[in-house]
Amino acid sequence: MSGTGAKAGRRDDIVAVALELLDAHGLPELSMRRIAGALGMQPSALYWHFPDKQTLLGAVAADVLGAPEASGPEALALDLRDRLLGRRDAAELVSSASALGHCRIPHSELLRSAALAAGADDARAAAAASAAVLYTLGWVLHAQQRSVAEALGAASPDAPEPAPYADGLELILGGL
Amino acid sequence: MSGTGAKAGRRDDIVAVALELLDAHGLPELSMRRIAGALGMQPSALYWHFPDKQTLLGAVAADVLGAPEASGPEALALDLRDRLLGRRDAAELVSSASALGHCRIPHSELLRSAALAAGADDARAAAAASAAVLYTLGWVLHAQQRSVAEALGAASPDAPEPAPYADGLELILGGL
Repeated sequence: MSGTGAKAGRRDDIVAVALELLDAHGLPELSMRRIAGALGMQPSALYWHFPDKQTLLGAVAADVLGAPEASGPEALALDLRDRLLGRRDAAELVSSASALGHCRIPHSELLRSAALAAGADDARAAAAASAAVLYTLGWVLHAQQRSVAEALGAASPDAPEPAPYADGLELILGGL
Repeated sequence: MSGTGAKAGRRDDIVAVALELLDAHGLPELSMRRIAGALGMQPSALYWHFPDKQTLLGAVAADVLGAPEASGPEALALDLRDRLLGRRDAAELVSSASALGHCRIPHSELLRSAALAAGADDARAAAAASAAVLYTLGWVLHAQQRSVAEALGAASPDAPEPAPYADGLELILGGL
């Protein structure tokens, strides 16, 4: 039992270090070698905890997403937006990890339940949850790509800004 | 004048070859070196036509997006979705290039005009255009990441599918 606990604790350490490296260097630079190096481990030792890099990234994405306590469709969508905005490259990380099935976006199921509770039928609740999550990922992805480009001086100053996040969200959720 | 014409023609050749390489190898492998090699050029010669890789990728993205002839908000959104689905990694390419200001998404302005024509006020038309474009990018990004992962055997079979594209689009545009 203590061995299992130590293994789980080490797994948490790995995710925590990966999150620090993500903020410091960005997703393209987040290699198994770099994570192992920051922990003073051999890269091969990481594979005792995670079968492959995609699974490790899924655990990092799940940590970014956390366990939302918000209720109500708007509050859940805003919680997702704010968690993604809080970590460098998080929209790209979560979009990829969830598409691959290596993390679940807990907001998705909670949004569906909230839409059902608000009186939507099954199909409409599923559509609203899905559209709110994909719109949020698209919006934050745009904002994060833009800020990386600005930091590098690679953004064109006349790139059009998207409309405010809340305005699009209201269109998606307003009918509930 | 003939020199200018030759230069423009060469630029079109470069974009066409970059599109072929994108379909064959994917966005992460689309390097200036690879594009130059496929054209029998030195990488440095590409810089006579494009000041940097981001500008070249912007031209490739603009070619993917084309000049939509659809009218009506739904038809414009579907046209964007289909153009993105038609090229490997196109959602990532277009999202990045447009966030950096290296391409414009023509559907965006056309959607706004169509929403105005349908009677929406300025703020609502901007919100609907922006939400429809970001939702479409998020939806296609998910689908394309999923299909890359499936090709590599890296997708988990129990990853949840998003709701059908048209259902979310209807929530965004339904009120117009």
